[in-house]
Amino acid sequence: MNKTINIAVVGLGQIGNYLLNELNTKKKDIEIKTGKKINVVAISAKNINKKRKYKINKKIFFKNPLNILKSKKVDILFESIGVSDGISKRIVETAIKKRIHVITPNKALISKHGDYLSNLAEKYKVNLEFEASVAGGIPILRTIKEGLATNKIFKVYGILNGTCNYILSEMEKSNTQFSDVLKQAQNLGYAEPGNPKLDLNGYDAFAKIRILSALSFNNKISKDKCLMEGIENISLKDVDVANKLNFRIKLLGISEIINGKLFERVHPCLVNKQSYIGNVNGVMNAVITEGNPVGESVLQGEGAGPGPTSSALMSDLLSILRGNIKFPFGIPNIKRKKIKIFNYDNYINSLYLRFEVKDKPGVLAQITNILAKKNISVERLIQIPDVKNKTASIIIITHKSIEIDAQNCVKIISKNKNIIKYPTLIRLL
Amino acid sequence: MNKTINIAVVGLGQIGNYLLNELNTKKKDIEIKTGKKINVVAISAKNINKKRKYKINKKIFFKNPLNILKSKKVDILFESIGVSDGISKRIVETAIKKRIHVITPNKALISKHGDYLSNLAEKYKVNLEFEASVAGGIPILRTIKEGLATNKIFKVYGILNGTCNYILSEMEKSNTQFSDVLKQAQNLGYAEPGNPKLDLNGYDAFAKIRILSALSFNNKISKDKCLMEGIENISLKDVDVANKLNFRIKLLGISEIINGKLFERVHPCLVNKQSYIGNVNGVMNAVITEGNPVGESVLQGEGAGPGPTSSALMSDLLSILRGNIKFPFGIPNIKRKKIKIFNYDNYINSLYLRFEVKDKPGVLAQITNILAKKNISVERLIQIPDVKNKTASIIIITHKSIEIDAQNCVKIISKNKNIIKYPTLIRLL
Repeated sequence: MNKTINIAVVGLGQIGNYLLNELNTKKKDIEIKTGKKINVVAISAKNINKKRKYKINKKIFFKNPLNILKSKKVDILFESIGVSDGISKRIVETAIKKRIHVITPNKALISKHGDYLSNLAEKYKVNLEFEASVAGGIPILRTIKEGLATNKIFKVYGILNGTCNYILSEMEKSNTQFSDVLKQAQNLGYAEPGNPKLDLNGYDAFAKIRILSALSFNNKISKDKCLMEGIENISLKDVDVANKLNFRIKLLGISEIINGKLFERVHPCLVNKQSYIGNVNGVMNAVITEGNPVGESVLQGEGAGPGPTSSALMSDLLSILRGNIKFPFGIPNIKRKKIKIFNYDNYINSLYLRFEVKDKPGVLAQITNILAKKNISVERLIQIPDVKNKTASIIIITHKSIEIDAQNCVKIISKNKNIIKYPTLIRLL
Repeated sequence: MNKTINIAVVGLGQIGNYLLNELNTKKKDIEIKTGKKINVVAISAKNINKKRKYKINKKIFFKNPLNILKSKKVDILFESIGVSDGISKRIVETAIKKRIHVITPNKALISKHGDYLSNLAEKYKVNLEFEASVAGGIPILRTIKEGLATNKIFKVYGILNGTCNYILSEMEKSNTQFSDVLKQAQNLGYAEPGNPKLDLNGYDAFAKIRILSALSFNNKISKDKCLMEGIENISLKDVDVANKLNFRIKLLGISEIINGKLFERVHPCLVNKQSYIGNVNGVMNAVITEGNPVGESVLQGEGAGPGPTSSALMSDLLSILRGNIKFPFGIPNIKRKKIKIFNYDNYINSLYLRFEVKDKPGVLAQITNILAKKNISVERLIQIPDVKNKTASIIIITHKSIEIDAQNCVKIISKNKNIIKYPTLIRLL
């Protein structure tokens, strides 16, 4: 590698723009730490004139990022456009084939095309780094690839979506309905103003959990259908009842190996209020790994926002400048396995069930009978009457039950004429 | 570097012995991840016949570790003897001069001779790695050097001694006196059976905080006298009162930059029970960094024991095998500064004070008068009478006060004839 390194930044949204400023202000620091001078030679975005926090150098601006690779000598390219296909994929592909190192925070791209792109990077002997794609400022990928390198990891899980965690925390803290807190989150810039769906339905956390499992278990990124539920149906009543039962509701991404099979999932969980994960509130992210011999490791930090994301992008940059040529997923692609998928119908777990019923004699017996028939035994039961509306909420915490039995049960009970709305099912951690 | 790497392990106590087993069982995994075959060619310890958990190969045993370097070709040496000078220093020095990479969990050695040894390593172009010296299984040094590489860190603190944290947690949990919990900790192997002094008096945590500051602030390891207090004088009464006031007592190591000066300290702290650090209990360690732009990052994990320590030693090994030649403290030694030391007399903080007094009229007034004269204002005051003994405990939480004023105050009050024993002073976080 030369002493002067040419850099291109493609995509100048919040993150790209912040990064650009970091690159400019930390040149000297980077030279001290790595012996390399960096030089931003090209930038690209959709709109040259968009209002940005930090001024851009219009002399090095390209409307079409692909033209950068045709006309400039670039050593390292930052891709921060952020789509899973299209121009994001095209520019990364083209750069790698021209033996340009690539750094990206694009989880959608990596969780979809990570295997293909890492193969390509290995073939062309360049780095493909994506620390910023999972949990922003928390250096979790580097920790798994390097800090915990020889451990056998069997479970990795955590709070991977700051928007959802903020909404759930705020619902509890200020006793406010989901829809109102969502509006508030949008005003504060924590949730997308237009379409926050990919945060709320669990998709964003899922992309991250797939990247985390690939690193933890050395498997190819899984493509199969999995258990994915968001927080859209969590009501204030659930938050409130959970609270009284000494639980909090958190949207968790979880990946583990069960009997040699891979079980990846994202769904709301009831977690103990005294537990570590139960105390990670607000926009914070946290990732917990369980491995041998290291035991349980926890990493917590800000999961999003241009500052933490830039911190991760810069750590990737320094790693490349220090000359660490590495396999994107820690080991050669040929050694990465395909792990069979665990059938989540067989998942055994305790559940929180909430039934909204007409307050009539015999309703409770009808519910508990169906549960008993399906071998679902009750650990705790709470009935909260709503005298005015002549209805009641029946909340049940079950003993460990088989997922498919519980799902069937809920389906059957939902058809009972005394049930007012489709029951709520939340898994315990 | 050749494809086959010769390794020597010097010191076969709990950690060295566990490491040896890891090296043997993970050979294949290491080859997959790094392309290098490792080969343990020499081991050394005081006693060849000592009973060890894992069998050792006596054919490669050396009584005197220095003879290894005379007769064997070694690429990487593990030093796990663990003293700050003597043979530990000598073997590390000699190895580096022979261009052998060194990996060590020896915090006493690094906190005392780290500057000299890292200079030497830089000169001879080898790695000196010591991830395992701070917080065992938590990859905190790598995270600061790499994951947070371009952040400006201004504070690093945490629970760095598992023994102390276990004792304090257990005192609260089982309502047991310090001395009894200590015995229990010794029986469980959490505290040295012979002389646990270096854990209890804060020395162990101090060595770690000095290494952490050197990495966080790019300074030479400080040698100056600092604020260091252990947990030997924490009584069950303090634990209990703290609990009622919604606090927990934790032994913290803290390093921060105040007005451009370095303030390193280790002492018990009253921390909020709802805070993150207030919920790290038992033998767990946790390190929190505050930096820009990343914000607050938390790492938590098992801080000691052969498993977590080996995990860190192995991560250092993989880093070397992957060919990452790095400055031991992240930047060239010549760029590491000497930072002036903050005079802790000027430290401004809230305090918890406990006075044991004779239960006579006017005593409280005497105490509060002296406090008022020294400008120490009271935020909360609790008096707990002990009717049987005609004594009382007066507990005061102060507003922010200057350290030296508070110390003087306590000295003056301690001479009052109504004071039964020297007052207790614990700082709030």
